[in-house]
Amino acid sequence: MGAALALAERGVGRTGVNPSVGCVIVSQAGHVVGRGVTQAGGRPHAEAAALARAGAAAAGSTVYVTLEPCAHVSTRGAACADLLVAARPARVVVARGDPDPRTDGQGIARLRAAGIAVTEGVRAAEAARTMAGFLARRRWGRPHVTLKLATSLDGCIALASGESRWITGAEARAHAHLERARHGAILVGRGTLTADAPALDVRLPGLADRAPARYLLSTTTPAPEGWTRLAAPADIATITQDELLVEGGAGAAAAFLAADLVDRLLLYRAPVLIGGGRPALGDIGLGTLAAAHGRWRLHDARTLGSDRLEVYERDRN
Amino acid sequence: MGAALALAERGVGRTGVNPSVGCVIVSQAGHVVGRGVTQAGGRPHAEAAALARAGAAAAGSTVYVTLEPCAHVSTRGAACADLLVAARPARVVVARGDPDPRTDGQGIARLRAAGIAVTEGVRAAEAARTMAGFLARRRWGRPHVTLKLATSLDGCIALASGESRWITGAEARAHAHLERARHGAILVGRGTLTADAPALDVRLPGLADRAPARYLLSTTTPAPEGWTRLAAPADIATITQDELLVEGGAGAAAAFLAADLVDRLLLYRAPVLIGGGRPALGDIGLGTLAAAHGRWRLHDARTLGSDRLEVYERDRN
Repeated sequence: MGAALALAERGVGRTGVNPSVGCVIVSQAGHVVGRGVTQAGGRPHAEAAALARAGAAAAGSTVYVTLEPCAHVSTRGAACADLLVAARPARVVVARGDPDPRTDGQGIARLRAAGIAVTEGVRAAEAARTMAGFLARRRWGRPHVTLKLATSLDGCIALASGESRWITGAEARAHAHLERARHGAILVGRGTLTADAPALDVRLPGLADRAPARYLLSTTTPAPEGWTRLAAPADIATITQDELLVEGGAGAAAAFLAADLVDRLLLYRAPVLIGGGRPALGDIGLGTLAAAHGRWRLHDARTLGSDRLEVYERDRN
Repeated sequence: MGAALALAERGVGRTGVNPSVGCVIVSQAGHVVGRGVTQAGGRPHAEAAALARAGAAAAGSTVYVTLEPCAHVSTRGAACADLLVAARPARVVVARGDPDPRTDGQGIARLRAAGIAVTEGVRAAEAARTMAGFLARRRWGRPHVTLKLATSLDGCIALASGESRWITGAEARAHAHLERARHGAILVGRGTLTADAPALDVRLPGLADRAPARYLLSTTTPAPEGWTRLAAPADIATITQDELLVEGGAGAAAAFLAADLVDRLLLYRAPVLIGGGRPALGDIGLGTLAAAHGRWRLHDARTLGSDRLEVYERDRN
């Protein structure tokens, strides 16, 4: 399942409205005979790709897949559950069920009805992270939102003079570009657009073709050529991409936090103190300290050059 | 040496102008036959205490000590180098030399002249941390200064309304009290004194007797009963304690940073976002971002309840 999750992670941000799914097929003898990941645009599905590779070797195999195989036939391909039944694996291990009403348990039921053993719920939380956008769309009717902040130890994003290049180092900035590649859409506020005129492209070798859709949060400023304007955070429900990265500045970040529309926080921190600089966040409408607690949970922390990255997740339970 | 360092750590903040030193004596058979740490007020020294415990068992032993044994006779006790020569250990392992001109290599020379094997430089950097105040006094003629900040993820120490209790949780606050116990002196600014009227005592079981000297940073406000007023950060050269903890607020912290008089930064961070709150630091006179880089190095990071503590050290090399 670890290998299937890694495959799924590769496709995040480029499978359109489909989740990025990973599939690995292991033969009875213990060899990997097929691997697949949802292709750009959403098809073929991971299982179809992996089964095509495995061919006859799929008979008697164990299939690891990060999402329940689909049960619905589409003009773009057969149902993966049917493809699996035809391939006759001994066992299918599924990270989590598919909430799509056209599947929602029917994929697994169809496998079991054909005599294939099915194990569910293996590394489900990790699988959820690889399809966070897909799940946010199903649950809340909007994209999954990641907020990126790059600050000093004292929470500043620039000197009082406005100087902000660079607080974090090259490794942290490269990681931030990798995060752009994981997102189908990127948003900035008016201030950032005016001050930095960001291209919001992915400046990494091999990933330059990942061009996220660009959004501007502003009630009045017209969007530049090729961009789309959103008047308020709630308008993200109208966008088609499933993963949105909010890149700044302090006003846009605060607007999304005030609307409780941030699911994941990427906090890049450099070992510098600025003092009296520009704060990372504007007013988010917090009334009391008690209301601030219990919302964020540290998911990951790592060193990037001399900087630190912390990843927090919004705890909605 | 690890055990000797742990002993030394226990005495930090209560040995007056003497460093807190740890000493462990291991017999030829491998048993610990003596342990000692510099006592409150500075005497007896660690070696004297450990040798008194070991008695005749010190002969042929290995002595681990975090600082070079002193070579000078005082009215308060014999020179530790002489005590060691008399006790006839086979070997003495020393973490680092004593810069006191009355010793400064003479302690080790005296041991070697008596035929005792001496190993120097074992875990010297860790030993330096246990006697940071002593070394700062020798090098810079002032105490070692630790700045404590307790912030939200966005670097705030209070809401815009002033509400600041509590950002960090009980575990982080208990740890901060442990840090108070490691410091002979504590300083706050006028704003913190007025707003919080802090007692600055050590509220931990078994450590309530550790009452740090209290200082107020202010050009005009008179110090409360039992406190001492300092008009400027540079005036710390006049205080007698070797370890100073600067507890806040944003103005006092900024004044010490602007004067480059902070050697160690304790950064307690709670997983909350405040947004538009009161910043941790006032202006520190930073002209450019380039000047902010290369000053701080992460020494330690740990989890305290749901909070994180990071310890940074000023890189003066």
